[in-house]
Amino acid sequence: MKAHTKYLTFNTTNRQEFINITEKVESAVKESEVKEGIVLVNPMHITSAVYVNDAEYGLIEDFQKWLEELAPAKPDYKHHRTGEDNADAHLKRQLMGHQVTMPITNGKLDLGTWEQIYYAEFDGQRNKRVIVKIIGV
Amino acid sequence: MKAHTKYLTFNTTNRQEFINITEKVESAVKESEVKEGIVLVNPMHITSAVYVNDAEYGLIEDFQKWLEELAPAKPDYKHHRTGEDNADAHLKRQLMGHQVTMPITNGKLDLGTWEQIYYAEFDGQRNKRVIVKIIGV
Amino acid sequence: MKAHTKYLTFNTTNRQEFINITEKVESAVKESEVKEGIVLVNPMHITSAVYVNDAEYGLIEDFQKWLEELAPAKPDYKHHRTGEDNADAHLKRQLMGHQVTMPITNGKLDLGTWEQIYYAEFDGQRNKRVIVKIIGV
Repeated sequence: MKAHTKYLTFNTTNRQEFINITEKVESAVKESEVKEGIVLVNPMHITSAVYVNDAEYGLIEDFQKWLEELAPAKPDYKHHRTGEDNADAHLKRQLMGHQVTMPITNGKLDLGTWEQIYYAEFDGQRNKRVIVKIIGV
Repeated sequence: MKAHTKYLTFNTTNRQEFINITEKVESAVKESEVKEGIVLVNPMHITSAVYVNDAEYGLIEDFQKWLEELAPAKPDYKHHRTGEDNADAHLKRQLMGHQVTMPITNGKLDLGTWEQIYYAEFDGQRNKRVIVKIIGV
Repeated sequence: MKAHTKYLTFNTTNRQEFINITEKVESAVKESEVKEGIVLVNPMHITSAVYVNDAEYGLIEDFQKWLEELAPAKPDYKHHRTGEDNADAHLKRQLMGHQVTMPITNGKLDLGTWEQIYYAEFDGQRNKRVIVKIIGV
């Protein structure tokens, strides 16, 4: 069995930003030399998410509007008594499903035609890490 | 370490349909001859989900009504400027958690009494694939 | 490849309770002697969730209030025709993402500074199990 670990770092221009990281994960899979296995992609911060969906700009706007409706940024969260102002980011990242585990077959990410891996930042403008952990044979 | 891959295909009669796939995943686990490990069950399309919950028809109706309330089918999504009409399906699948990874112990899916694995189709009536990826010893 | 399995049991005082289980998962990782791999933490019941977020009491209150808004406890779920009264718990656990898979590096849970693993109980006051499944080298 082989294991391979890679840390990606993101520092977004905007507080909220969605970034397609499929190629970065694919590169890590190649480096690992794993032919059959899985890759876990997990944000190491709790105000961002990794999810799989479409690389289509309209849909990304739909996601952002929808997340704002279901988990709005607003002052009156109890978490804000600590001095923080990002409770909505903690909620939004749960709605998106926070992390993904993807299959590796024949040395490649085994994705469907439209599956793309995204990093969703909800409280950016500072260094945030994502771990890519690959195991397999 | 062993690895085993199986692709399931679904073509539902209705646009939205929930299908219990526990037995299909259990069969793939048997074929793999893995005694201790995990199985990743991931839809290869971005308008469906795999989730674990109850095999109870009333609850499935509750899920469907609830998903329609939180992520309604409606014309005015930006994604629809591409000609698509299924933005709600992309949102609904995120709410359900999109994929699962389940434990294998003593050569069997290690499920609690009521845990059942479901395929939730939100934009069906065409061939859709689910990958079952098993790794372990 | 090594595999290690541990079952945790929770019996909460209240119907709804959020419990930090990071140390319990860390202990299981040590017992496994896995240096590089992953750990799957999955509730074996369908009215609870395992998620990763902040160990901050205000935020936990925010989560509980928010889940009640999006998936309220109320009598008129179809699931309740079976005699059950916990349909909301089945929905809430989907919103939180139900299970997590975390990386193991150098023999330890590879967590970001604020990542903590929680067990979220939505229908407690009875024995509920969580499986911790570790695989790696």
